[in-house]
Amino acid sequence: MQTGDVLIVGEDICEQVVGRSDAFDAVEAVFGAMARGDAYNFPVIREAIGHADALYGFKSGFDRAGQVLGLKSGGYWPGNMEKGLTNHQSTVCLFDPDTGRLSALVGGNYLTAVRTAASSSVSIAHLARRDAKVLGMVGAGHQSAFQLRAAAEQRAFDKVVAWNPHPEMLPRLAAVAEELELAFEAVSPEELGTQADVIITITSAFEPLVMADWIKPGTHVACMGTDTKGKQEVDPALLAQASVFTDEVAQSVSIGEAQHAVARGLISQDDITPIGAVINGDHAGRTNPDQITLFDGTGVGLQDLAVASVAARLAQEQGLGGHAAL
Amino acid sequence: MQTGDVLIVGEDICEQVVGRSDAFDAVEAVFGAMARGDAYNFPVIREAIGHADALYGFKSGFDRAGQVLGLKSGGYWPGNMEKGLTNHQSTVCLFDPDTGRLSALVGGNYLTAVRTAASSSVSIAHLARRDAKVLGMVGAGHQSAFQLRAAAEQRAFDKVVAWNPHPEMLPRLAAVAEELELAFEAVSPEELGTQADVIITITSAFEPLVMADWIKPGTHVACMGTDTKGKQEVDPALLAQASVFTDEVAQSVSIGEAQHAVARGLISQDDITPIGAVINGDHAGRTNPDQITLFDGTGVGLQDLAVASVAARLAQEQGLGGHAAL
Repeated sequence: MQTGDVLIVGEDICEQVVGRSDAFDAVEAVFGAMARGDAYNFPVIREAIGHADALYGFKSGFDRAGQVLGLKSGGYWPGNMEKGLTNHQSTVCLFDPDTGRLSALVGGNYLTAVRTAASSSVSIAHLARRDAKVLGMVGAGHQSAFQLRAAAEQRAFDKVVAWNPHPEMLPRLAAVAEELELAFEAVSPEELGTQADVIITITSAFEPLVMADWIKPGTHVACMGTDTKGKQEVDPALLAQASVFTDEVAQSVSIGEAQHAVARGLISQDDITPIGAVINGDHAGRTNPDQITLFDGTGVGLQDLAVASVAARLAQEQGLGGHAAL
Repeated sequence: MQTGDVLIVGEDICEQVVGRSDAFDAVEAVFGAMARGDAYNFPVIREAIGHADALYGFKSGFDRAGQVLGLKSGGYWPGNMEKGLTNHQSTVCLFDPDTGRLSALVGGNYLTAVRTAASSSVSIAHLARRDAKVLGMVGAGHQSAFQLRAAAEQRAFDKVVAWNPHPEMLPRLAAVAEELELAFEAVSPEELGTQADVIITITSAFEPLVMADWIKPGTHVACMGTDTKGKQEVDPALLAQASVFTDEVAQSVSIGEAQHAVARGLISQDDITPIGAVINGDHAGRTNPDQITLFDGTGVGLQDLAVASVAARLAQEQGLGGHAAL
């Protein structure tokens, strides 16, 4: 049997070579390709394996435009933290679309964080008001810092307002805001709605944390935490008021934030626009300064593959990474 | 982010360390675990990607008994042969079930061949008559040699009879038979049925090649080529006459050889026994020397994971394989 060469790009190299702008460009491009029908995600596998309370699975797809084929495998191991490991574990395999051979193995933990941050920042770039000044953060876990850093680059924000169900975690965001030279205020969720021009929700909630009445006209809301049936971050009524965009409509209505508004008949699948259509110039996006826009970021495999492909390319160009004979 | 150590087991090392008896033991054990409910396969992903005429996907699962978690990824690239590569390309990823971290990356091409051969040989060991003397081979492609070598170890055969839609490929099997010191005869499929005590079908056929009337009492038939909707190797009437066994009932009735007999109402799902039940001693298997037994080998992800896990363990014990920091 023939032996093939596989590029190995570890977590440390991913952190070294993939910056926020690389992730932004890769995610924006693949959202565009998805909306054109040039890239598609395969069905998601997600299994409770009945061991270590773990959820294991994979997301996968093929981007014909970018010639990227592969999968992200891994899952959620709730006991990892005690072992000094990240609870979410991800590994990306990239295959040569011409031959099916494994071309690169890429650590997926850091990349998952930056691609999720890139997703909300792409939505802000394309949907938020140009004059947005106050960024509202709902959630203060590990991922929230990534979202904040990426969002801060998209508009000339001068302040961050934040709320978290566990207020003792807010210093994490306060520190990032200080580093970015942004004012920071811990607020109630109602107050957050009153002040914020852009809101990012990044929690693991199973009930609405932000009510529709609290959101002012013109706000852009990026719901980034809902990726499973039953999860929920905002009032379904907000989706009826807003112009709703998403990464992938099929996921949005089934496992994304829109699942609840659709289930209650407040909106239908046809009311949801793939953000790629806005990126491609096929949909106007925001057309009115008072319009509320909402992005349902469900997280698709093609995002993972897009940033992993960038990591592999940059590592190769810079002579980094290992090689394995397979 | 933490960096983890991944064991790399290439194709050459797999060939070096995994013998037929290792594959037999691993496949037999996991079939047993499946029948006990200690191991299960996750849904199969299989996609025509719309590039290079390729079929891409993965099979995956978790063996709680053996603590083996992972996936085999890859597919079928029909243009590979011209490039000097195998058309079927497979790579196995094994994960630590306690943490979700990638523990080993294992080349899957050789292992796919040996696990498929192990599957039919496990069926022969448990279902064929002890006094079987003549082995019938239907199909003479690359995989057929693996099936023949593995089958020959299960009974004291003295002769191989073979038929292939393309007779010019039969010298491959004749050479293997000679090496194994078995007589060899190229025959018609009717004659094959008359002579053979054990038959292995290993083709890519979409129509029956072996008719029920040609099979004599007491024969064991292992149908190994049907793994997709529409494929077919034997007369559906043969399944109604035979005691039918399989690796996984759900695959047998949907994409395996039994799909046709079930669709015609000749047998039902309840007529099919997981071979693991025989392995575990929960089903008698063959109870009569005149009984025809038929094994529908559809190929499950857990087989791949089982042999890959053996490859990783043996490579580690023997200080072989590479290491990658991920």
